[in-house]
Amino acid sequence: MHMSKKTPPKIMSDEHNSHHAEKRRARRDAMQNTQDKRYPRRPNVARDNNDKLYLYGLHTVRQALANPNRKKLCLYATKNGILRLEFDLIDAPDIEVIEKLPKELDRMVGSDAVHQGTILEVAPIPTKDLGDLKESNLLLVLDQVTDPHNVGAIMRSAVALGAGAIITTSRYSPVESGVLAKSASGALDIIDHIEVKNLADTLETLKENGFYTVGLDSEEAIPFEGLEPQSKIALVLGAEGKGLRQRTQETCDQLAKLDMPGEIKSLNVSNAAALALYISRQKLTK
Amino acid sequence: MHMSKKTPPKIMSDEHNSHHAEKRRARRDAMQNTQDKRYPRRPNVARDNNDKLYLYGLHTVRQALANPNRKKLCLYATKNGILRLEFDLIDAPDIEVIEKLPKELDRMVGSDAVHQGTILEVAPIPTKDLGDLKESNLLLVLDQVTDPHNVGAIMRSAVALGAGAIITTSRYSPVESGVLAKSASGALDIIDHIEVKNLADTLETLKENGFYTVGLDSEEAIPFEGLEPQSKIALVLGAEGKGLRQRTQETCDQLAKLDMPGEIKSLNVSNAAALALYISRQKLTK
Repeated sequence: MHMSKKTPPKIMSDEHNSHHAEKRRARRDAMQNTQDKRYPRRPNVARDNNDKLYLYGLHTVRQALANPNRKKLCLYATKNGILRLEFDLIDAPDIEVIEKLPKELDRMVGSDAVHQGTILEVAPIPTKDLGDLKESNLLLVLDQVTDPHNVGAIMRSAVALGAGAIITTSRYSPVESGVLAKSASGALDIIDHIEVKNLADTLETLKENGFYTVGLDSEEAIPFEGLEPQSKIALVLGAEGKGLRQRTQETCDQLAKLDMPGEIKSLNVSNAAALALYISRQKLTK
Repeated sequence: MHMSKKTPPKIMSDEHNSHHAEKRRARRDAMQNTQDKRYPRRPNVARDNNDKLYLYGLHTVRQALANPNRKKLCLYATKNGILRLEFDLIDAPDIEVIEKLPKELDRMVGSDAVHQGTILEVAPIPTKDLGDLKESNLLLVLDQVTDPHNVGAIMRSAVALGAGAIITTSRYSPVESGVLAKSASGALDIIDHIEVKNLADTLETLKENGFYTVGLDSEEAIPFEGLEPQSKIALVLGAEGKGLRQRTQETCDQLAKLDMPGEIKSLNVSNAAALALYISRQKLTK
């Protein structure tokens, strides 16, 4: 282990390794029993391989520390990082704190990562089911959008613009990572991430529950501004270039497009999400 | 040169730690060897050192090929890439075309870069002066925003939402790169990039020319929706965390904020740009 001299012996270490090893074994065994080999589990290295990841940056680490549903393992931080975190670590007695030099942190997450003197080793947050959906009048549904920079920015906009949850498929779900968390600037530990098996079925369920399902599309769609006022909206976004899958398109109540006056007719997916969320909010009857 | 091609200066948020202070000092010391200490050249190695860079991806390469102001050097492409480009290379007799295998292209730009079988070696586009500003009723001004992913997405949104030019300072200007170009999805070769020495002076000039200058701010500002209709708007954005510099704030006709109903009160800068451009457009009297 790469510890500084001052740190207490890492008592948790063995225990937690074997704990995770056990989980991994259980998971591997479970996978071998799955019926359908055409639908392998998503390649979530953070979960399959070592069940932990590094979050970094002040906002991100602060929100993760404050999230009771987040399993925190170890805080690696500079003296200054701990101060700037403005988080009373006495409130989190289970978290091991290891003081590091800035360049040691650089080495842990890469020198491009703006860690601001803090890295928190965590377990990914368990995703939720549709049954866990809380009362909300605005939802964001992602149809196979996985790029971590974009999904992070989307999560941040979703929280800022008041969406109650992000719904993704379990296949092609965004994988929790340091980059995603940093782009989300704390939103990863705020917004509920609901994973579903079948997106079309889920949209049907949302419709039964009063949601007007609007798919963002570029072709043969009405402008977003032309949407009728609605009491609840579920906004559905596809990946850049690929767009919504056929069945997703067919299942939405309405396809809508963002009209662009300029020479380029499409936005980066997180920019499109921000704009579509903004206009959708304006359509809510409250 | 004292900077590598891939690392534009990192504009840190207000939260600086000693590690970064150290980096800044090293940078400052290095700068002291340049001629003009008040206006050091921006560390654009692409221009200073070898004056060329790789653009990749179909949209990006296509737009660069179609841009008469872009100096094209060599196209490296797979057989399939050349077909998918749908660009008649007979129209560009000066460009050398070198066929490559996909894995060879991977090695050139990194396997993370979605090159889609095409890499175009180019020279950066010469930036323009304020005197080159074309007739437009919407401009985007960046106050030290340099992150290539964000600036790329901002350029794309600026083109899509009809902004006539992007204005930056020559210090802390975004550096043209493959990542920026890819994020811009062709916009880099469409939108005019105007570089100015002094942003506050430039804002004054824009005001004299009928532009209402609106700075995006989070504090003590009116909501964007509350802006009065205007015939011409110049929207001014600062870097994430740092925001607008004092003098920029003071020079703007109006500071405006994007009101967020959620727990997070700020958006990723490119998401904020898209939203602010969208609302600004709605305020144009045309």
